[in-house]
Amino acid sequence: MSATDQSLTSGHKHNEIQRAIAPQAADPEAAEAAEERKTDRWLLRRISSFLGEPPLEFVVRGGARVRPASAPVARVTFASRATLVSILADPWVRLGDAYSDGSVTVEGDLVQMLEVVYRASAAADKPSWLRRAANLAHRPHLNSLARSRDNIHHHYDIGNEFYSLWLGSTMAYTCAYYPTPTATLDEAQTAKMHHVCRKLRLKSGESVVEAGCGWGTLALHMARHYGVRVRAFNISREQVAYARERAVREGLAGQVEYVEDDYRNISGHYDAFVSVGMLEHVGAKNYPTLGRIARRCLGSNGRGLIHSIGRNHPARMQPWIEKRIFPGAYPPALSEMSQIFEPSDLSVLDVENLRLHYAQTLRHWLGLYEAAGERVRAMFDEKFVRMWRLYLAGSIAAFSTGTLQLFQVVFATADNNDVPWTRAHLYT
Amino acid sequence: MSATDQSLTSGHKHNEIQRAIAPQAADPEAAEAAEERKTDRWLLRRISSFLGEPPLEFVVRGGARVRPASAPVARVTFASRATLVSILADPWVRLGDAYSDGSVTVEGDLVQMLEVVYRASAAADKPSWLRRAANLAHRPHLNSLARSRDNIHHHYDIGNEFYSLWLGSTMAYTCAYYPTPTATLDEAQTAKMHHVCRKLRLKSGESVVEAGCGWGTLALHMARHYGVRVRAFNISREQVAYARERAVREGLAGQVEYVEDDYRNISGHYDAFVSVGMLEHVGAKNYPTLGRIARRCLGSNGRGLIHSIGRNHPARMQPWIEKRIFPGAYPPALSEMSQIFEPSDLSVLDVENLRLHYAQTLRHWLGLYEAAGERVRAMFDEKFVRMWRLYLAGSIAAFSTGTLQLFQVVFATADNNDVPWTRAHLYT
Repeated sequence: MSATDQSLTSGHKHNEIQRAIAPQAADPEAAEAAEERKTDRWLLRRISSFLGEPPLEFVVRGGARVRPASAPVARVTFASRATLVSILADPWVRLGDAYSDGSVTVEGDLVQMLEVVYRASAAADKPSWLRRAANLAHRPHLNSLARSRDNIHHHYDIGNEFYSLWLGSTMAYTCAYYPTPTATLDEAQTAKMHHVCRKLRLKSGESVVEAGCGWGTLALHMARHYGVRVRAFNISREQVAYARERAVREGLAGQVEYVEDDYRNISGHYDAFVSVGMLEHVGAKNYPTLGRIARRCLGSNGRGLIHSIGRNHPARMQPWIEKRIFPGAYPPALSEMSQIFEPSDLSVLDVENLRLHYAQTLRHWLGLYEAAGERVRAMFDEKFVRMWRLYLAGSIAAFSTGTLQLFQVVFATADNNDVPWTRAHLYT
Repeated sequence: MSATDQSLTSGHKHNEIQRAIAPQAADPEAAEAAEERKTDRWLLRRISSFLGEPPLEFVVRGGARVRPASAPVARVTFASRATLVSILADPWVRLGDAYSDGSVTVEGDLVQMLEVVYRASAAADKPSWLRRAANLAHRPHLNSLARSRDNIHHHYDIGNEFYSLWLGSTMAYTCAYYPTPTATLDEAQTAKMHHVCRKLRLKSGESVVEAGCGWGTLALHMARHYGVRVRAFNISREQVAYARERAVREGLAGQVEYVEDDYRNISGHYDAFVSVGMLEHVGAKNYPTLGRIARRCLGSNGRGLIHSIGRNHPARMQPWIEKRIFPGAYPPALSEMSQIFEPSDLSVLDVENLRLHYAQTLRHWLGLYEAAGERVRAMFDEKFVRMWRLYLAGSIAAFSTGTLQLFQVVFATADNNDVPWTRAHLYT
């Protein structure tokens, strides 16, 4: 819809007149309309309060509006009072759903709009009663072996062709590493893989186990550039099929084995353990198990790296993302991540927070995604296009506002003194 | 004592004869002596078991001995059965005390001896009943304002002259940073200060607050090399007096203010917060308070650094060190350190583990300390000399075996996007 919607403008004028003449209004229809708008404004203010009073204009299509104290960054329009009421019953999930089905529209920059929402939410000293109630309604669930398989299938098996539209040529679906902010997506994904391999100080002839290997990009990179043998685990059937084909095509099938299995079934001994972008799906209760597995499969000179979305403090996953995009996902705080390492006496050597790199990665993904909008619509439908736009734009906003973090943690077995003396080797 | 103590050798021979003729011995004195040795061996085995069966020979002077399965790294001699019995009543504390007063002596390298003890203790699957009982006997105490003052006085106010004998010319009493393992102590201490300042990206004209400033070295370094104004807090009277005099002598009194006060009384607003080697004295219960203070004194582009001894997992302080050397000290695990940052929504940007640098720093300190042995003995007494030797050697062993860690944590306020894009600037 356009910013100069005619009926909305006239509705607004009508409303002013109504206010001027009320309560002496003789026209019962006008009085009723005024009453309706009053109710709508109350509902809009509840939404605004729920979101922490961000600088946004909230509008009911053709009716009431609520303006912020400062200049609005964007206008959010609700299709009807029914939309509003439905959202207020479960705002965390239904705002996202209403955006997806088009009953909520945004005029202005979607990323900026989401950024002000994240900032206002974080700044709100006391969450509204509605937010407190909504928080109680959403509890994370446990990730059993079977549940994990369903969750991963939900997100990663929706089609390799779809992902290839916007992930760039590396098909790496995790935060890239931009040596400079002007690097391209593919350059940054390649730099990320080198950064990880250097942090692990991989040497030719060594063996590596990878937990959660996506479309197999990092495993191939390690084998090709560092001469290591890799066993890479993943429970997404589509991704493993894609990765195996790629390994054959690239002549690396002798060095890289893709195993369609859960990280909990990793066996054998390796020089290094690596997991990039799997931890988000592990669930905090399973962290000690993950650490035990890493410890078990490493020798006394073992070292490892875990790369994960995280948080500054423990908080539940955004419920709409958890429900519609990533079932079972949970980004941990460092205190929670430490439960991977501490019970198994693994020694944390290095933590790097790359959150601004993830905002940049997501900007590149969203750009490619929007450019491929017609093809995505043809593959799925308009609702899907809007849903994934919201997810990508919301993720940019989450990283750029510091709502989400990206932690790369390097660790070693406790008695391993063959650790780098400084980190200078990463930068020369 | 010497490795070829005569009475010990003859005692050993006597013992062999005794074993050869028992139980038919007609000599009641010899039978009694054999019984005595049996008791002593039982006591020695209790000590060995308490320590996790390290490869050490344990001897009662002139009497029983217990040898390890593999070649012993050193010989530990107890002056008498009374010494042994007294130690077994509270081994954590009394082993250190007995070494200090000379009733326990070590032949062989003290650091290597302590390293095998740390390794054996860590490897022991099940702690002995004695160790479990000893663990219960030692509980950390809280650090109130008054208690903190007493604790700090106990360690840091024993004489600036004493510390100047072995800390090198910088008088920095924290882990140094060795760009290469061959750097000298002074070079490494200076490199550490630059490393900290680069991590904080200090710019000329900025203001810094320092919590726990020792003899004031870092504050002067920041002012001189980075052009910042510093307010530096410390509750050690001797250290503050020394630091103030130094600032005047070096012409930096206009830029650096030393405040004799507790970190909990820090007020004002600053661009950066820094604390190197104070956290060990804060106590885990006070971490959220420390974080609140850091958050309160930083603006929206605020950043900070906390440098502390730590652990791979929560564990109490070694009780002898806690009792005799550092009352109230506690080295935290990362899960515990995160309680500084998480409740105040501070964002951890970078964690670097420098434990091998602390082992190297301590080797340099111990070398200087031993070289100044006569002067230390003249200042205090032989017991003090042995006590501090044990503390320094034990600290080397703790860091070299991975029993202790050294964490440097860089953090920023959550919404600060003016953070370094990569860490390359630290290495160029």
